[in-house]
Amino acid sequence: MNIGNIDVSSYPNSEKIYVDGVLHPIRVAMRRINQYPTVTIENGKRVEHPNEPVTVYDTSGPYTDPDFHFDVNAGLPRIRESWVAERDDTEQLAEITSAYGRQRLADKSLDAIRFPRLLAPRVAREGRRVTQMYYARQGMITPEMEYVAIRENLDNAARGIKSYVTPEFVRQEIAAGRAIIPANINHPEAEPMIIGRNFSVKINTNIGNSALSSGIEEEVAKAVWSCYWGGDTLMDLSTGDNIHETREWIVRNCPVPVGTVPIYQALEKVNGSVRDLTWEIYRDTLIEQAEQGVDYFTIHAGALRAHAELIKERLTGCVSRGGSIMVEWAVTHDCESFLYTHFDEICEILNKYDVAISLGDGMRPGSTFDANDRAQFLELDVLGELCTRAWEHDVQVMIEGPGHVPMNKIKENMDRELDKCHEAPFYTLGPLTTDIAPGYDHITSAIGGAQIAMYGTAMLCYVTPKEHLSLPNLEDVREGVITYKLAAHAADLGKQYPGAAIRDNALSKARFEFRWKDQFNLSLDPERARSYYLADRKTTGDADDRFCTMCGPNFCAMRISQDVNKKCKYE
Amino acid sequence: MNIGNIDVSSYPNSEKIYVDGVLHPIRVAMRRINQYPTVTIENGKRVEHPNEPVTVYDTSGPYTDPDFHFDVNAGLPRIRESWVAERDDTEQLAEITSAYGRQRLADKSLDAIRFPRLLAPRVAREGRRVTQMYYARQGMITPEMEYVAIRENLDNAARGIKSYVTPEFVRQEIAAGRAIIPANINHPEAEPMIIGRNFSVKINTNIGNSALSSGIEEEVAKAVWSCYWGGDTLMDLSTGDNIHETREWIVRNCPVPVGTVPIYQALEKVNGSVRDLTWEIYRDTLIEQAEQGVDYFTIHAGALRAHAELIKERLTGCVSRGGSIMVEWAVTHDCESFLYTHFDEICEILNKYDVAISLGDGMRPGSTFDANDRAQFLELDVLGELCTRAWEHDVQVMIEGPGHVPMNKIKENMDRELDKCHEAPFYTLGPLTTDIAPGYDHITSAIGGAQIAMYGTAMLCYVTPKEHLSLPNLEDVREGVITYKLAAHAADLGKQYPGAAIRDNALSKARFEFRWKDQFNLSLDPERARSYYLADRKTTGDADDRFCTMCGPNFCAMRISQDVNKKCKYE
Repeated sequence: MNIGNIDVSSYPNSEKIYVDGVLHPIRVAMRRINQYPTVTIENGKRVEHPNEPVTVYDTSGPYTDPDFHFDVNAGLPRIRESWVAERDDTEQLAEITSAYGRQRLADKSLDAIRFPRLLAPRVAREGRRVTQMYYARQGMITPEMEYVAIRENLDNAARGIKSYVTPEFVRQEIAAGRAIIPANINHPEAEPMIIGRNFSVKINTNIGNSALSSGIEEEVAKAVWSCYWGGDTLMDLSTGDNIHETREWIVRNCPVPVGTVPIYQALEKVNGSVRDLTWEIYRDTLIEQAEQGVDYFTIHAGALRAHAELIKERLTGCVSRGGSIMVEWAVTHDCESFLYTHFDEICEILNKYDVAISLGDGMRPGSTFDANDRAQFLELDVLGELCTRAWEHDVQVMIEGPGHVPMNKIKENMDRELDKCHEAPFYTLGPLTTDIAPGYDHITSAIGGAQIAMYGTAMLCYVTPKEHLSLPNLEDVREGVITYKLAAHAADLGKQYPGAAIRDNALSKARFEFRWKDQFNLSLDPERARSYYLADRKTTGDADDRFCTMCGPNFCAMRISQDVNKKCKYE
Repeated sequence: MNIGNIDVSSYPNSEKIYVDGVLHPIRVAMRRINQYPTVTIENGKRVEHPNEPVTVYDTSGPYTDPDFHFDVNAGLPRIRESWVAERDDTEQLAEITSAYGRQRLADKSLDAIRFPRLLAPRVAREGRRVTQMYYARQGMITPEMEYVAIRENLDNAARGIKSYVTPEFVRQEIAAGRAIIPANINHPEAEPMIIGRNFSVKINTNIGNSALSSGIEEEVAKAVWSCYWGGDTLMDLSTGDNIHETREWIVRNCPVPVGTVPIYQALEKVNGSVRDLTWEIYRDTLIEQAEQGVDYFTIHAGALRAHAELIKERLTGCVSRGGSIMVEWAVTHDCESFLYTHFDEICEILNKYDVAISLGDGMRPGSTFDANDRAQFLELDVLGELCTRAWEHDVQVMIEGPGHVPMNKIKENMDRELDKCHEAPFYTLGPLTTDIAPGYDHITSAIGGAQIAMYGTAMLCYVTPKEHLSLPNLEDVREGVITYKLAAHAADLGKQYPGAAIRDNALSKARFEFRWKDQFNLSLDPERARSYYLADRKTTGDADDRFCTMCGPNFCAMRISQDVNKKCKYE
């Protein structure tokens, strides 16, 4: 399938499969990678030994389903619409609540760039809380909970792999605050996914910052591109004139949860003047975005007035946009951050839509020198306090983490987060383990990311090669996503997550048996693996040589090793 | 400077400096990166605050010295020639010892491709051992030892940073076998470097496999390219018709220690027939290469007959070329590996030239499934025994390590190596932390490499993006080297190696102050950092904007943070 200028045709030799729910009438999407048989010659005859297909976690949504017909103007199927409706605790609004949103809607000049089939937003009925955490605490296993339980397990049960991940386990983890399912009632197109340290490690990708003028399909294409390569959630960090309309297009066409940083849009509304920010403008922005269907908000409510003094001790001050905006606001007005003082009110808005909070780390270190300092750890204490307050409102919470941290200081970040933030899921940016490699910071950060994820971080925010230097293009997004997928997977292996090794073992078996096509197809980026292999080939044939280009035919260790095995067998 | 089709002009705003020895008349090469001043406006006036230059470890040799005039036919200056001669324990041979080497020399048809100024090889006088380990055990601090002590310290002392790394400390580490200085008396062109866990982490790069016909300068260019980007040692894994002559060109023009795997050439001499390998052919190959100046040999003497049974239990058998060759040889001849049975004789050859042994891990796991298995750990036990035997002959030793290892099994590798191999330096290939990312295995392995290096691995063998798929081109070599430099450096930071953070802190300060050019110049790959930055710029000007492309002028966290600092200052 082509969207904008990207091609998200299904992966080679893969098929989309759906696993049915038991508790609920749900269909959970997965990808099955089929394999070629292993061929041996026995008594002069060619014998084929079949290799089982490998089922993998699939974030690509309907786009890789051959039965799906894409129409950017229609949006994706709303798989959660009936689940939400059947809970019978929400109502459809006659009109959107946000003043800004109404103003945009009334502006006829925007008709040309407006998503044509706006959904009437839903909101909790008076006095109701409609969050997954609320339901979990009531003992309910929602369709969302069963969905993620099935999704995490893939086809492990059929392979005899027992997992602790059951729908009831999911419920308990959500109830305890150890995991979240970001699932705004107004984003029924998203396939539920879970973020928590007792589940597979997830990755987030960031897009945004282009004006809508770059083309609607182009914006949607970026989102789809990120999902196609494996992004589990998507943060839309767009700025510019038409971010309200841009966001609508993205959310309606996005099969994964969407996150934003509402303070960015609030600042746009006051023309970038921090002084002019108000709680009222911010509040209206929260409602505007909640009714569009944003699944989680990064809120820098732990960046306080007191931090202004602490960041002076730093080598690189405050490198978080949201954090620096709030500290400047607090200093300018000589009072505490309105995100902190209005935090309970924020929670009472969010639990009406089930928008999760990602408590922003406004004080994340921007250099290895600043890692684990007073500014950072003071904020973490505050985030722990805010986490407890959010949970009192049944709002789902994750905690954002650094940043730039040398390897010897990484574990302390994880341990402290678990301790101070009551085991809420940790969501880190890297961390980058050295500052000296701009242009390669996807790698400096994958090193730290894999490590902290093995220690328990639930989701990693990707970093692209352009970090610190420029905005990523499509190729950078792909490089960043694959880098983070492999880091997250390395952590899953390191955690011995049930079933995580199946794909590694299948690929390694294919490699040892010179089933090159299976090796490519089982990899995170089949296209790149294949193109690197073919680059050095004399022919562009079927890729079934009994040696690889690295050692050449005389020196191939794996072939010699196979021959040794045979010799031993017959001796 | 252009060599072949590469450009190794000096790094931007850098200069070559030389630090004199105290004990010996030596000059230790380093690179000094100069910085622009920090500019502030005070009372309406522009004030410049100078920033100290940063001195970095330099592996590029004379090639980046503007006073050096390159002549591929002359080879590099022989800085160690007088050091070796003055020890007065070696003699110059009238002719080379190896029968094969003499045969090549006598072959007039090879004159056209022969290095024109062959050195008369040196060898230890009868009954003498000329290894750095021997000298260290005698209490001698050689020029090589003082050289590496100065090299490791850079200009730390001038900055008030105390380090435990003194010439005497170096001597003790070498004497104890905890570190090695690979320094063949026949490679006087190489600048001494040290491999040991109490020193900065080093990286090795592999080149080779092209026929000489690709051009002599091209072969030398590959070696220089590797050194330019930061390779600490270079393994020449060439095969083909003229590897003897190719190696001579490389060694004579290579400023870092050169390693080889002599069994590869021995196998070439018997036309790739493992059965026809003999101890005599191998022995002659060792002498041939030792007299050319190879600084360390990978010897798979721990891959034994018994391994044939053990690798049958594996998913991916034996993936080491040397290991699989030796096991096949042992199985074919139904006897023990000749590398094992002749190990003492090997040591008695090598201590006459000071060739270090890198004990090959023929049983390294080729998949995460096979990690830490019986085959691997049986071999490690044998390597520990062989290490002790080599030390009895005063031969310097390092131990090769895996391979493919999931993160939860990495530390056991390091701990066991220290225990079983008596703290000899560990030299690992990665390890790769997952098998599912062919095309990105520089990253899967950098994750494991950084981790194991923090635990104590002394040198990491780089992996390029083409691993498992194809041979690396020049761009892959650069990508692999930088990836491993950053992983090694992350480990140095993690180990809190004295002075390691200086470069990070300088770069981070430059970043915070929007000194873009300094940020680029201080980075591992200034060219890439700069090109990524400029990719998104409207102008190609001087790169001194007070914001970066990522956030744009309104949102720049660092600018806001600086403004907050100022506000707080004046309040």
